[in-house]
Amino acid sequence: MNDVIKTILNHRSIRSFQSKALTNEQIQTIVASAQAASTSSFVQAYTIIGVSDEEKKEALAVLSGNQAYVAKNGHFFVFCLDLHRLRLAAMYEGMTEDEIYDAFVSTELYTVAVIDTALAAQNAALAAEAMGLGICYIGGVRNNLEEVSRLLQTPDYVVPLFGLCVGYIKHVSGKKPRLPQEAVYHQEVYLAEDKHIAQLAAYNKTISAYYKQRTDGKRTDRWTQQIAKKLKNPQRLYLKSYLQSKKLPLM
Amino acid sequence: MNDVIKTILNHRSIRSFQSKALTNEQIQTIVASAQAASTSSFVQAYTIIGVSDEEKKEALAVLSGNQAYVAKNGHFFVFCLDLHRLRLAAMYEGMTEDEIYDAFVSTELYTVAVIDTALAAQNAALAAEAMGLGICYIGGVRNNLEEVSRLLQTPDYVVPLFGLCVGYIKHVSGKKPRLPQEAVYHQEVYLAEDKHIAQLAAYNKTISAYYKQRTDGKRTDRWTQQIAKKLKNPQRLYLKSYLQSKKLPLM
Repeated sequence: MNDVIKTILNHRSIRSFQSKALTNEQIQTIVASAQAASTSSFVQAYTIIGVSDEEKKEALAVLSGNQAYVAKNGHFFVFCLDLHRLRLAAMYEGMTEDEIYDAFVSTELYTVAVIDTALAAQNAALAAEAMGLGICYIGGVRNNLEEVSRLLQTPDYVVPLFGLCVGYIKHVSGKKPRLPQEAVYHQEVYLAEDKHIAQLAAYNKTISAYYKQRTDGKRTDRWTQQIAKKLKNPQRLYLKSYLQSKKLPLM
Repeated sequence: MNDVIKTILNHRSIRSFQSKALTNEQIQTIVASAQAASTSSFVQAYTIIGVSDEEKKEALAVLSGNQAYVAKNGHFFVFCLDLHRLRLAAMYEGMTEDEIYDAFVSTELYTVAVIDTALAAQNAALAAEAMGLGICYIGGVRNNLEEVSRLLQTPDYVVPLFGLCVGYIKHVSGKKPRLPQEAVYHQEVYLAEDKHIAQLAAYNKTISAYYKQRTDGKRTDRWTQQIAKKLKNPQRLYLKSYLQSKKLPLM
């Protein structure tokens, strides 16, 4: 198997890093890798903010739900959806406020920018892993977007979407078994519902066994149980109004 | 430089493929790579539909805006945001329709699922490139989502987000220069506005020179000009109402 696929398949999220900062060269390679990703209609609708200031990292760690590894890592990247740059480009070409408004109240444009940002981030993550570093995505930056935006001084039309911790690995985590391939990959058409349910039941057994083995029998959660728990406590329901406050109402 | 980073930096979109189908083993490796990506709270909120049926590929090529390479490639993958599986998991755990509705009318959950789908897709793209294959993302599947959904028989709560053509390369395309790194990567805080504008002006020159050289002087578009043109013709404004019709109103 070639090194690229080996790196991809060997991924696990790392939550324990050595206190050793990344070099500028490492950061540059990670960002260059992010930028090499495909981008819809060449819009490149993202900005990456690199945080190394200790105090700011501590603040972000608290804001992201008290996740210590947001502060303790080699470098913290915040991946932001960025339509501000597109707005400047449009103004540069003489577009009016009204024309720009019409283009920006778009669920499509939001979706494009989220996809662009995520494609870039995954390249960054893999580049870091290819250098022997560990990574962990931090959706928790969306817990308190007002404060995070203030801290990073992001203007209107910019949304911090998630963080990426990168650093030298201190403790290697386990690799959680994913859904069976036949659950996620369907041929020609979407799978019939009865097959889904049988797959979920089988996958529940896999996941329960995984937790049981990892925790000496203390945890035996089913996957469906985790999902139900998550859905019973919907998070970040303010996101839509935050987007609106950043002049990105989704229409 | 290691092979992973070399593969990442060498990416270009391929739009001309040989008529040679991928093997099942190649497809399995690509999907396994997709599944190895990080997933928010382990939701794995995507499904990949592989299309090899010639007639269906031709139909998708037309629906995606008459892009011939959607039909002519080694395999066509459609990456779908999938909350249907989460719904089944929730029902499996006895959640009520109302509880599920409350969880699903969420811009946050939509955003999570878009990110999950894109992270998986970028792994798939890189795995394919690592095997010497070419790839091209197809946002055009969002041009006609009603028809695409019908063709792929996707149920409510599932949204085909984009396609990915994979295949043996016939014609290698050029690599368009990205925004300068200092435009996309900001340190500690978001960059001040005046710096952005200077960067755009400089980048315009780079892009104009690139097109000029590639087209023997016929094209000299500025980047800002391309962006303004795109924004003046907002696309796929029906996306929000499509999501609503799929029982995913964004609240």
